[in-house]
Amino acid sequence: MPRRRTLTLNDYVEGVLKHDPSIVGRAITLVESNAPAHQELAQQLLARLLPHTGKSQRIGITGIPGAGKSTFIEAFGCHLTSLGHKVAVLAIDPSSSVSGGSILADKIRMEKLAREPRAFIRPSPSGGSLGGVTRKTREAILVCEAAGYDVVIVETVGVGQNEVTVRAMVDFFLVLMIAGAGDEMQGIKKGVIELADTLVINKADGDNRPRALAAQAEMKRVLRYLQSTTAGWSTQALVASALTGEGVPQVWDTTLEYFRTGKKTGEIERRRRAQAVEWMHALIGESLRTRFYGSPKIQNLLPKFEHAVAHGEKPALAAALELLESV
Amino acid sequence: MPRRRTLTLNDYVEGVLKHDPSIVGRAITLVESNAPAHQELAQQLLARLLPHTGKSQRIGITGIPGAGKSTFIEAFGCHLTSLGHKVAVLAIDPSSSVSGGSILADKIRMEKLAREPRAFIRPSPSGGSLGGVTRKTREAILVCEAAGYDVVIVETVGVGQNEVTVRAMVDFFLVLMIAGAGDEMQGIKKGVIELADTLVINKADGDNRPRALAAQAEMKRVLRYLQSTTAGWSTQALVASALTGEGVPQVWDTTLEYFRTGKKTGEIERRRRAQAVEWMHALIGESLRTRFYGSPKIQNLLPKFEHAVAHGEKPALAAALELLESV
Repeated sequence: MPRRRTLTLNDYVEGVLKHDPSIVGRAITLVESNAPAHQELAQQLLARLLPHTGKSQRIGITGIPGAGKSTFIEAFGCHLTSLGHKVAVLAIDPSSSVSGGSILADKIRMEKLAREPRAFIRPSPSGGSLGGVTRKTREAILVCEAAGYDVVIVETVGVGQNEVTVRAMVDFFLVLMIAGAGDEMQGIKKGVIELADTLVINKADGDNRPRALAAQAEMKRVLRYLQSTTAGWSTQALVASALTGEGVPQVWDTTLEYFRTGKKTGEIERRRRAQAVEWMHALIGESLRTRFYGSPKIQNLLPKFEHAVAHGEKPALAAALELLESV
Repeated sequence: MPRRRTLTLNDYVEGVLKHDPSIVGRAITLVESNAPAHQELAQQLLARLLPHTGKSQRIGITGIPGAGKSTFIEAFGCHLTSLGHKVAVLAIDPSSSVSGGSILADKIRMEKLAREPRAFIRPSPSGGSLGGVTRKTREAILVCEAAGYDVVIVETVGVGQNEVTVRAMVDFFLVLMIAGAGDEMQGIKKGVIELADTLVINKADGDNRPRALAAQAEMKRVLRYLQSTTAGWSTQALVASALTGEGVPQVWDTTLEYFRTGKKTGEIERRRRAQAVEWMHALIGESLRTRFYGSPKIQNLLPKFEHAVAHGEKPALAAALELLESV
């Protein structure tokens, strides 16, 4: 893309605070950057933006491939903008390893929402690493909040650890499912249902509607055996059709009800505080491990030790102690 | 207890290998000890025993309070000894913070099994910490295997993180449940069903049997929506009565079938290797964190930083970086 003038810290702060989408985009690019120089500026920016953050409803949305995530988020997002909300969608995209790698793809995925002036769609590159996708996404949330988006949606594809890390940065977690012979539903990653504050069975339209309703009944049965994710809230199972739009307003109503309850109980505030502190400790732990495993000594010893431990030639604890003493 | 002669490394090794129960007990006390002197001897002992370990079937059993864990493990264990198996039961007991703290209690809980010459019952004190209960329990498993126990049962009460840590040290994980109005079943900790290789609905006797069978059918429905814990094995839901003994042999048959399958697929061997390596890394990570948080500088700074992060006065990442640089 064309060379753009470098922005000062103040350019970023002012641009974000007066909600200039192109600056918001560049601010997110900055916090996503791994270049040390950028990281320092990014931290200064975040410190300046922090007082203006925290006012959004942070919503995580996941679903198995084929559940119709993009279509649903587009319908959901358009419903919100039609109500006057300013919606930011941060799509964690494992296919793009570099920042902005698939902005275009995403704009195409959610063409209608992308045209909404009140909507902001942004792919968040997935590094998978704690310091990667999640740090970037968490900080992107803060930038969006400072820019005045009052609903921030974090989309993640139902792969591996993503849901857990996203659950740890949002207030409300929505899991999108589709009815099926049962097999499709098994595509849900282990434990994902337990992270959900609401399950939405999508594609409840046409011939598929009866099966969606059956799936809803089934999920309500399943939920009876699982503790709800959020104290004081029992996980809901809804049906919707992103295609016809049916049920989408109900999903938003349920979301609002969730936030009403969570504010009354203080659970949302409590969780946000806990999330921030846990996050700090997670980053510390990650950095300690990165330093340790990054040392040439360890990189050289590790394969031998792993092999010995795996094959029962060395107790795990003894190996751990030896490695720790070797640096 | 009376002063006993101190054992040399060789006393321990020989005593364990020739299956002297009192030496086995003292060897476990040694590996459980937190005294640095003991820990070094313990590591030497484990290194010597290691070649004789790994031959048992490692079974984790958990269940909500009231599910009848002790009664079930007693019935299960007696069935095994009656088949000629040598059974060790390591009961992770959160109530006892010191080694052997509730041996008596446990012997009473499982009086009949405790009288079996082929059975060995041992509480493992629960520290909750990674280096605590789990390290001790893992190493106690190794001692029991070296002593020739061919079935090692790790019992844990269904509280918090315990199931996950126990799942990470056994081959087969059994979750004990009881039928009820549904409410009891909700006592199951979040995600525990997903860790199970087999669910057993206990107390399937008398008036309760129909409800147990209904619960079994219900759990089979639930399991359809959860990925099985072990590749190549679909989680089973069984009914049993520890009281009448009905169903207990079937639980063992299912266990055997699981191990037959797991050996065929190589999954058990693969998981054991992975468990040992993950364990080494977990211990390294824990030790790195312990060192860091143990430093007086950090202990002094941490409360301020946690408060600032919790109240949005400081970004988590900035706080993490400052703390990391301060040591």
